[in-house]
Amino acid sequence: MHKLVLIRHGQSQWNLENRFSGWADIDLTEQGVAEAREAGQLLKQAGFSFDLAHTSRLTRAVRTLWHVQDEMDAMWIPVVTDWRLNERHYGGLTGLNKAETAARFGDEQVKIWRRSYDTPPPPQDRAENPAVGDPRYADLAPEQIPDTECLKDTVERVLPYWHESLAPAIKAGRKVVVAAHGNSLRALVKYLDNISDEDIVELNIPNGVPLVYEFDDELRPLRHYYLGDAEAIAAKLAAVANQGKAKA
Amino acid sequence: MHKLVLIRHGQSQWNLENRFSGWADIDLTEQGVAEAREAGQLLKQAGFSFDLAHTSRLTRAVRTLWHVQDEMDAMWIPVVTDWRLNERHYGGLTGLNKAETAARFGDEQVKIWRRSYDTPPPPQDRAENPAVGDPRYADLAPEQIPDTECLKDTVERVLPYWHESLAPAIKAGRKVVVAAHGNSLRALVKYLDNISDEDIVELNIPNGVPLVYEFDDELRPLRHYYLGDAEAIAAKLAAVANQGKAKA
Repeated sequence: MHKLVLIRHGQSQWNLENRFSGWADIDLTEQGVAEAREAGQLLKQAGFSFDLAHTSRLTRAVRTLWHVQDEMDAMWIPVVTDWRLNERHYGGLTGLNKAETAARFGDEQVKIWRRSYDTPPPPQDRAENPAVGDPRYADLAPEQIPDTECLKDTVERVLPYWHESLAPAIKAGRKVVVAAHGNSLRALVKYLDNISDEDIVELNIPNGVPLVYEFDDELRPLRHYYLGDAEAIAAKLAAVANQGKAKA
Repeated sequence: MHKLVLIRHGQSQWNLENRFSGWADIDLTEQGVAEAREAGQLLKQAGFSFDLAHTSRLTRAVRTLWHVQDEMDAMWIPVVTDWRLNERHYGGLTGLNKAETAARFGDEQVKIWRRSYDTPPPPQDRAENPAVGDPRYADLAPEQIPDTECLKDTVERVLPYWHESLAPAIKAGRKVVVAAHGNSLRALVKYLDNISDEDIVELNIPNGVPLVYEFDDELRPLRHYYLGDAEAIAAKLAAVANQGKAKA
């Protein structure tokens, strides 16, 4: 049996402020650091170990991974960072407070932008795009840097990464952890569990909680589960679901 | 012109306690963390940037690298960890207090063990060898895990790594930082600057100070220099030189 552990980064400063982050390189809060460390402790106590890590090019994902590695005495494992695991690019919404955006455009429009499978938000100006000119994306052709993305666009960059990098490593027996983002992980989970375009809209992944997938030899999912206290996870999921709504 | 930056890890707990570490996985002290962060700041202020990092499998080197990356906003760069960059294996001296060993065997014998080019210390029992059975060395054949090493042995594993991994990357234009150990870095410096077996014995590399090499297109060294305050570096060098001597 093969396993894969997915971890969405811990709370970031813009999670806390309820702002769309996307490719903006926002770091973890103290709570986010604590969540990452707890994820590492949970994995260690459950007997997990890793010999390969994949993460995005964004600091909040890498730092989450580092804390997990540190707690698990696994600082020595190879770490691959790839833009294909980055958060969905939120286009012209990047940096906006989600509650304010909702108050202005309405809950439903925000939910469409956040959660519709194939409707991207308005594009971001190249001059404001945090990825343009950043050396961390020097391996991308200019046209590969998104101006905006819907979840479908994110799926279309995440899935090749699954097929070319992650799946072969897992099949070869490597013990892999992936530290990434709400939408890059939803893209992967949609494929793994064959979730419809409609249903994926309502699926949320909480910050900083290890999500374990077990596969057969053909990497067909047998089951998945979160590690940790069920009530705490439910509370986190409710918080994620409410992020796009206007504050009362 | 090509550049390479070498950094010996910051002060470790066993540096502080004056004990032989070798392949024992000893973490940084608070001072060691501060040294690593200062190294990152010095590099940033001097305009350095990196797109590739190599380090050992030992926590004190990886953590030093991570702090440098963090200070330089370079957490996204790929990190390769390889046992060939590990500290020299100190054999049966591993874990011993250097001053006590010196008091027992004499300064000269300790200096021979620490600094003779081709006289290894007595071997360590396999049962006590910290590397035997550790998953971080799962890619080594059992006979590749040393029982003890002289500096010559360390050179003989570091140089293939230079020729196969580091030099090709630098020649290809990658901006490389190597975070490693006193003796794996001395092994590399011996080769780069063509230092004799006798002279390398007296060469010390201080903890946590960036050492910059500049090369021509054939990777012949043009010059090298430490970044930072000259007096502070001199004081650190004197401290390293005195580590093997019995305390008064």
